[in-house]
Amino acid sequence: MQTKGLIMVHTGYGKGKTTAALGLAFRALGHGSPVCIIQFIKGTWKYGELYSAKRFDDLLEFHVAGEGFTWKSKDIERDRRAAMEGWELARAKIQEGLHHLVILDEFTYALNYRMVDEGEVIASLRQKPKGLHVLVTGRDASAALVDIADLVTEMRDMKHPFKSGVQAQKGIEF
Amino acid sequence: MQTKGLIMVHTGYGKGKTTAALGLAFRALGHGSPVCIIQFIKGTWKYGELYSAKRFDDLLEFHVAGEGFTWKSKDIERDRRAAMEGWELARAKIQEGLHHLVILDEFTYALNYRMVDEGEVIASLRQKPKGLHVLVTGRDASAALVDIADLVTEMRDMKHPFKSGVQAQKGIEF
Repeated sequence: MQTKGLIMVHTGYGKGKTTAALGLAFRALGHGSPVCIIQFIKGTWKYGELYSAKRFDDLLEFHVAGEGFTWKSKDIERDRRAAMEGWELARAKIQEGLHHLVILDEFTYALNYRMVDEGEVIASLRQKPKGLHVLVTGRDASAALVDIADLVTEMRDMKHPFKSGVQAQKGIEF
Repeated sequence: MQTKGLIMVHTGYGKGKTTAALGLAFRALGHGSPVCIIQFIKGTWKYGELYSAKRFDDLLEFHVAGEGFTWKSKDIERDRRAAMEGWELARAKIQEGLHHLVILDEFTYALNYRMVDEGEVIASLRQKPKGLHVLVTGRDASAALVDIADLVTEMRDMKHPFKSGVQAQKGIEF
């Protein structure tokens, strides 16, 4: 089987967007297929998965865009540079087509804050190598991104512990 | 930190419920924390993750309830026995408290089809060891399950390739 690689989006305001990306990465790794992850916001991938990733360092390539931009940063220019560098790397990895799956984690923020050019991103996704799967995660996926995607999943919180005062949990928080 | 283990639910009609569970499992495994997965419907965990799991066989325990019941089965009594056996195992694992995370994958079906007693399940979750996290996945989480849960995430398809005729993909389909 196989043939057409999918363009996938995990969006919505709920938990699980990045966690499901992680699950997808491990599924592909389990098949022995190489995966490239580029993280656009620092900290969404926790130590847990990075430790796990070490068991797959023959197959998994992991990058953080610049140092990742953060919501707390006051240096918007540095954030923009980091996002652009991340996208340049992503574009190169997509063009290469050496991976089974390329994950652009929390990339919608870079798009929505116009740190990267959306038209260029859409064009690059449209021209991606045939068998390559690309997954973009993040809130507020734009209409253009949804339009080009094959699969879009929205994660919604029906109930959330932080709202009721439970702290984030090591090895669980997601 | 740490203290209270969470009761979590991944529900909804979208993709990603089991995939996010898998991501959560690998996150915990990455921390060196033992995980127990009990699968109530055969086939939702694909070969990919089982291959991945092998790299963690020191920490990951994986069970299939009975042989797993299926929607195609004509033997409802066999399905019921499998679900009950799965639940008995789950209850024992929850009581033991030896794992960091116990995942009951696609367990809502067993509850909703009254193959197991919901009151007993809720009571068991209520009495779980303090630090243990439990994650239940499946469509149509019941009001009682949502009520006892700390975190409930709904996955919804905004766009789905199978609807537009794209086949399931090896190493991706989820």
